[in-house]
Amino acid sequence: MKVTLENVLPGDIEKRSFEIITAELGDRKLPEDKAALIKRVIHTSADFEYADTLCFSDGVMEKALDAIKNGASIVTDTQMGRSGINKRSLAKYGGQVYCFMSDEDVAEAARKNGTTRAVASIEKAVSMEGPLIFAIGNAPTALVRLYELIEEGRISPALVIGVPVGFVNVVQSKELIMETDVPYIVARGRKGGSNVAAAICNALLYMLDKTRGR
Amino acid sequence: MKVTLENVLPGDIEKRSFEIITAELGDRKLPEDKAALIKRVIHTSADFEYADTLCFSDGVMEKALDAIKNGASIVTDTQMGRSGINKRSLAKYGGQVYCFMSDEDVAEAARKNGTTRAVASIEKAVSMEGPLIFAIGNAPTALVRLYELIEEGRISPALVIGVPVGFVNVVQSKELIMETDVPYIVARGRKGGSNVAAAICNALLYMLDKTRGR
Repeated sequence: MKVTLENVLPGDIEKRSFEIITAELGDRKLPEDKAALIKRVIHTSADFEYADTLCFSDGVMEKALDAIKNGASIVTDTQMGRSGINKRSLAKYGGQVYCFMSDEDVAEAARKNGTTRAVASIEKAVSMEGPLIFAIGNAPTALVRLYELIEEGRISPALVIGVPVGFVNVVQSKELIMETDVPYIVARGRKGGSNVAAAICNALLYMLDKTRGR
Repeated sequence: MKVTLENVLPGDIEKRSFEIITAELGDRKLPEDKAALIKRVIHTSADFEYADTLCFSDGVMEKALDAIKNGASIVTDTQMGRSGINKRSLAKYGGQVYCFMSDEDVAEAARKNGTTRAVASIEKAVSMEGPLIFAIGNAPTALVRLYELIEEGRISPALVIGVPVGFVNVVQSKELIMETDVPYIVARGRKGGSNVAAAICNALLYMLDKTRGR
């Protein structure tokens, strides 16, 4: 056997991973308040491109952390994303994670209106109360609809995490969100995913946990 | 607004995505029996590297499809992977998707033995009956333990999908699986993920559905 395993204790794997990421970033300077988030996305994807493609609106980190502290809930466009977000950590601040994609009324609305279910699930969120974070890791149609609802003044998210992945209107949907005045974290280009959306949510949660000393 | 959206009907987005992927692959020839699977992984990740990094054991496609037809269940190492696999499609052939990561006995065994929960969840699968597919999208420790159990003759998977992502022993764990005699689909290198694991499972299911005319 020529394969040699690195001897790392289970509890140290994540720490060691972040050390490797930091080392490989080398002289590359990340903005201090965003470094932990960017590294967590790289940790989730093993893709250093995110150091270049992640885009942040002005003051978004503070606004995002405040939203969570104020009990913001997260609406996401896939069950995978919902699975990946640390719901226990979010619940400590009063928020919950919602995904409406499998809801019967969403399927029905999508059929009736000839939209994707992702669009119908964003429309379902319009009537929700309290601060909302949208974590879109899959459907550009969701992000486009969100853009329209923001422009129409019908919804005012505390944060939009815009990281759908793919080939049809993915790049465009992200550019649209970056034209709005809402706080955003966007992965420019085609890449992203439910895993990246969840990683960004969790990075924010762990930052807060840290300041609370846990 | 300078952003121009491509006008694609909801039901055509996936088809259009695959057309773009095929066009961008250009002269690059993919093995005919594996092209749909490789393209689905690219579709899920927007990462063309997978055309180079996906590795297949001899005859794995036929063996994998036969396993599903014979009612194989899928064991995966994340709830995200479980969320992403098309459980309805798998159920048509008699299989189910299992993830033991949140099980109390798994947490207890990991604590007791000083392993990751991923290792304990693989050990829990040893006593399962019937053909098993392991879809490992997160934990290299799970893949390493699977390798050991295979070498000890204690488990004989119908297929190992080895696509953990990350920085500590990820590359090595995949190389180990490729040293065994079990059928495998592996994404060489650091990249992979629960989304990639689910995409590979779904690609296999959709191939079968297609041959059954659905």
